[in-house]
Amino acid sequence: MSNGRHLKKGSPTPDVPEDGILRLYSMRFCPFAQRVHLVLDAKQIPYHTIYINLTEKPDWLYDINPQGKVPALELVRETGPPVLTESLLICEYLDEQYPLRPLYPRDPLKKVQEKLLIERFGAVLGAFFRASDGGDIEPFWCGLDIYEQELSLRGTDFFGGEQTGILDYMIWPWCERLELLKLQRGDDYNYDELRFTHLTKWLERMKRDVAVQAFYMEAEVQAEFLRTRSEGNPNYDLLVKADV
Amino acid sequence: MSNGRHLKKGSPTPDVPEDGILRLYSMRFCPFAQRVHLVLDAKQIPYHTIYINLTEKPDWLYDINPQGKVPALELVRETGPPVLTESLLICEYLDEQYPLRPLYPRDPLKKVQEKLLIERFGAVLGAFFRASDGGDIEPFWCGLDIYEQELSLRGTDFFGGEQTGILDYMIWPWCERLELLKLQRGDDYNYDELRFTHLTKWLERMKRDVAVQAFYMEAEVQAEFLRTRSEGNPNYDLLVKADV
Repeated sequence: MSNGRHLKKGSPTPDVPEDGILRLYSMRFCPFAQRVHLVLDAKQIPYHTIYINLTEKPDWLYDINPQGKVPALELVRETGPPVLTESLLICEYLDEQYPLRPLYPRDPLKKVQEKLLIERFGAVLGAFFRASDGGDIEPFWCGLDIYEQELSLRGTDFFGGEQTGILDYMIWPWCERLELLKLQRGDDYNYDELRFTHLTKWLERMKRDVAVQAFYMEAEVQAEFLRTRSEGNPNYDLLVKADV
Repeated sequence: MSNGRHLKKGSPTPDVPEDGILRLYSMRFCPFAQRVHLVLDAKQIPYHTIYINLTEKPDWLYDINPQGKVPALELVRETGPPVLTESLLICEYLDEQYPLRPLYPRDPLKKVQEKLLIERFGAVLGAFFRASDGGDIEPFWCGLDIYEQELSLRGTDFFGGEQTGILDYMIWPWCERLELLKLQRGDDYNYDELRFTHLTKWLERMKRDVAVQAFYMEAEVQAEFLRTRSEGNPNYDLLVKADV
């Protein structure tokens, strides 16, 4: 495996044990990959992580997954083996294939309503990226209003009810990055606790969630990664400890 | 109801019977709406269609569905009533809620593989629109190569097997429009029956499918609609017969 290091062009095929355990091709700073980590961790499904340098992808990645996409989940126990891509589709598959600790509602109507709220978050994360890039932040807050209102309507600790569900995890990566926005924008960061009373409490609850903690990253590290990336030389291995 | 006529701004709320039957807000020339019609028709689920003039949407549409999106499915029997949007999510909901004549595979792996092929068709339909708009047609053929190869691998009459499945219906609207491309591009239309041997036979089989026939439209009518639209005055009601 990669010991947290992001494998790049020229690196040998990773030495992953042939133990039948799922293999997740990921990138430590990717919010879409984070979705898959959250679901795997929340459901306590064992998996190996192979981190990929997305700027200089290793050639063997294309043998495993011709599109070279990350996140990708390799189902080593299945014939092929098949490799799944698209964070939302991977998460849905995991929830169906591993029914313990279900994250999606079983009722078709409730399920599609969660999916619509996840789908709609696509616009919010677009607004997040623009705000993080120095653009207007208000469209991002307007996007979050929908989720503030929804959580208020539900009257529960989490979108999933008394415990986290799929909507909590699918929107979390960008909510975790509120601290990053704060750091990036300084005085221009105008998060309003009165506007987001329910989300504010939810953020604190989420930070105590075991799956969230397992992949949590300090805003300073995220910011440093983005800084190196904007300079054209992304440092994927900021969190890798030097070999002893 | 609208008797096939597309209701526009200023039109009264449609007079739909209060019979508990699903209501589909649609547009006759929209390939995304067509997906929902195909699934409803294939599964023989009764529904009322309310056609919407998308250029001048009626105000009451926003009362039913604040985003004003089409296709939208109103579940009149449920409390709210909820209104679902996004063609793929509506179709998935219908397949789960109405289990007769299932269109998605039940096995989670086979199911996610169909969804990935549907997701990937997003690039193909993008290439279709560009080809239909006079752009290079080869990217569209390259996109179709994936489905030709897949059908060849499966060795079945339809993507769904011996009968149509979800993938057949989700890609159909753009495949039906091959005739439109032919009409639009004239001598520049280079569909290759040798390149698409399996898809060519599949197209003929699909044209005999009852659900496909129920919403089938001649290329000349599609072309005429696009012509009126490009002139800034889309004629949504080309298929509406004059009142007798």
